[in-house]
Amino acid sequence: MKRKILMTPGPSPVPAKVREALAAEMIHHRTTEFQEILANVHKDLKTVFCTDNPVVLLASSGTGAMETAIVNLFSKGDKVITVSGGKFGERWAEIARAYGLDVIEMQVQWGTSPDPLEVEKIIKENKGVKGLFTTLCETSTATVYDIEALGRLTAGTDILFVVDAISGMGQDKLLTDKWNVDVVVSGSQKGFMLPPGLACLSVSEKARKAMETSDLPKYYFNLKKALKSYAKDDTPWTPAVSLIIGMQVALEMILNDGLENRWDQFNLMAKAARAAAEAIGLKVYSQRPSDSVTAIVMPDDIKSGDIVKTLRTQEGMSIAGGQGDLKNRIIRIAHMGWINQQDLIECFSLLEKVLYQQGYKFELGASLKKIQEVIYG
Amino acid sequence: MKRKILMTPGPSPVPAKVREALAAEMIHHRTTEFQEILANVHKDLKTVFCTDNPVVLLASSGTGAMETAIVNLFSKGDKVITVSGGKFGERWAEIARAYGLDVIEMQVQWGTSPDPLEVEKIIKENKGVKGLFTTLCETSTATVYDIEALGRLTAGTDILFVVDAISGMGQDKLLTDKWNVDVVVSGSQKGFMLPPGLACLSVSEKARKAMETSDLPKYYFNLKKALKSYAKDDTPWTPAVSLIIGMQVALEMILNDGLENRWDQFNLMAKAARAAAEAIGLKVYSQRPSDSVTAIVMPDDIKSGDIVKTLRTQEGMSIAGGQGDLKNRIIRIAHMGWINQQDLIECFSLLEKVLYQQGYKFELGASLKKIQEVIYG
Repeated sequence: MKRKILMTPGPSPVPAKVREALAAEMIHHRTTEFQEILANVHKDLKTVFCTDNPVVLLASSGTGAMETAIVNLFSKGDKVITVSGGKFGERWAEIARAYGLDVIEMQVQWGTSPDPLEVEKIIKENKGVKGLFTTLCETSTATVYDIEALGRLTAGTDILFVVDAISGMGQDKLLTDKWNVDVVVSGSQKGFMLPPGLACLSVSEKARKAMETSDLPKYYFNLKKALKSYAKDDTPWTPAVSLIIGMQVALEMILNDGLENRWDQFNLMAKAARAAAEAIGLKVYSQRPSDSVTAIVMPDDIKSGDIVKTLRTQEGMSIAGGQGDLKNRIIRIAHMGWINQQDLIECFSLLEKVLYQQGYKFELGASLKKIQEVIYG
Repeated sequence: MKRKILMTPGPSPVPAKVREALAAEMIHHRTTEFQEILANVHKDLKTVFCTDNPVVLLASSGTGAMETAIVNLFSKGDKVITVSGGKFGERWAEIARAYGLDVIEMQVQWGTSPDPLEVEKIIKENKGVKGLFTTLCETSTATVYDIEALGRLTAGTDILFVVDAISGMGQDKLLTDKWNVDVVVSGSQKGFMLPPGLACLSVSEKARKAMETSDLPKYYFNLKKALKSYAKDDTPWTPAVSLIIGMQVALEMILNDGLENRWDQFNLMAKAARAAAEAIGLKVYSQRPSDSVTAIVMPDDIKSGDIVKTLRTQEGMSIAGGQGDLKNRIIRIAHMGWINQQDLIECFSLLEKVLYQQGYKFELGASLKKIQEVIYG
């Protein structure tokens, strides 16, 4: 018997009210009852995405929505820029190559964000670039990118700007329309406080125009079909009914809280998490840290994988380790969706316990004191 | 305040026990806890699919699994046969064409099933056919196809036999391995008693061999990646965690009931539904009716759309109308998944009520009497 707490950067916890909605009796999707739910969800998604453009739902995980952006807006051989500064930026390059795009993969040191001046240079040096793909929060390094600055580079050009906001949305501020982002991709299992299995993407007018000439093959992820159905608050294929019913409840909770309020809350939690790590002598990994997740470098003689495992099995506290080159080097603590300030206290309390047991030297309670000071001070 | 009952051929009702599982607290998918659940689901899916081959799960609706079969086993220009005897058979042709396959579309009169001798003729007349695509239960016409006979045509040849069992599985008998089916595709929201959003497909050794030479682009639906993860009871992308947790419960219920028992039960319910329709002077639409769903032709002066609408809004009873040319001509009543014999009684009781109100002449209670006789006689 152990109380469990989930602080991984997706899936993140699902509120009881949403879980109850997920357990509602099944209804048919071609009914006015479901159509009304879908209309509400479509409307609220636009608010959360900060866009006046359609936000289309897909029954898939976030990667499916990434693929949707690529196969509907581009054609074979199209030159596109992707930013590889972590696992999820690399995924853009992988999908684009799988469909025969000509990928210019900008390498960015992990833990840093792409310098807009560098991106501008790459655009200028490569004539005919059709797309720029980046990430809002690069989850693998807990780094937030400067989407506003990058959006200025593509505004008024023929370049489509596509942003993966799967882990960032809801915590890291993103003004889709104002910042000139053509397509924003997101998923249900992070800021939206839902189980995984639902993805969504916004589609600007510029993006809809590009759809007209795209020659890549597609069927399930056909965005034209999806937009045609969207206009009638319908979906081309059987939608993930229970997740959409849950999403209606989750979106209502998010908008009651207020988007701006939530950005502020998570910003404060992120600050507290970083200060807490430093208070016990640990280093924050990212040089441009996200408000959705914090990556902390473990002491040289401690494997982060061991910390994650011990926290999970001994304490019931789930956080994430590092991926790729960062395996066993960092831990990642999420502050997104339904995770709150008290969860952060609980997490650092148990992290101190486990580090202490491993022989790491620091002042017990120092991280908790720091969280208190940052948040309530 | 109205009690609702769902008897549409997908989504179908979800048992309370499964709905409770869907509402469980979220867990992370890269944990031994979830790995054990996935291992159970993988094992039980093989039993339900009647196969020793892997059955891979996808976070998508059934159409996504259909696309998976096409993009992983075939190459551009490959000659394949599809069987169009309803909306879902036509979908195979649509997906195959979207990916540039050379589609030989066999036209079959709606409400009938493809004659294996005719299929054999087409195979012989067209050298180099690489695939045969059919449907187990063609939901739009409530017709079951003779998969056993069709499987004999492709056994021992290089032709891959791919069957859409999305609505049929669990009710219409399907012996995947014994009948030489290379890929069987299914979805969560019918016989599996789950919400939509989860799809699965079995992959024979012959199919896995064909994957090696396939040149069609894919990423999210990359079956090689999925099979590699499957071998470790993992998934390449974030899986639909809550639906998989629900599936573990649903599969246990199905296997406790017994596959053979369930086939018998649904066969009896289908017989009863057909006899009930005839007892009130109505005609069964299909010439080879499925055990999953029954299509009934409405009297000439009554629009089936009106019956469906009145049943839903006035009585809380959801059934389906006709699609395409069958719009306003037929109603379709599902007997699949969690739907039982008493639901059938309730459905025909209300159908009699609505038909009676519309002025259709028949002996009240005759359909119910017939159901009693067929099931308990």
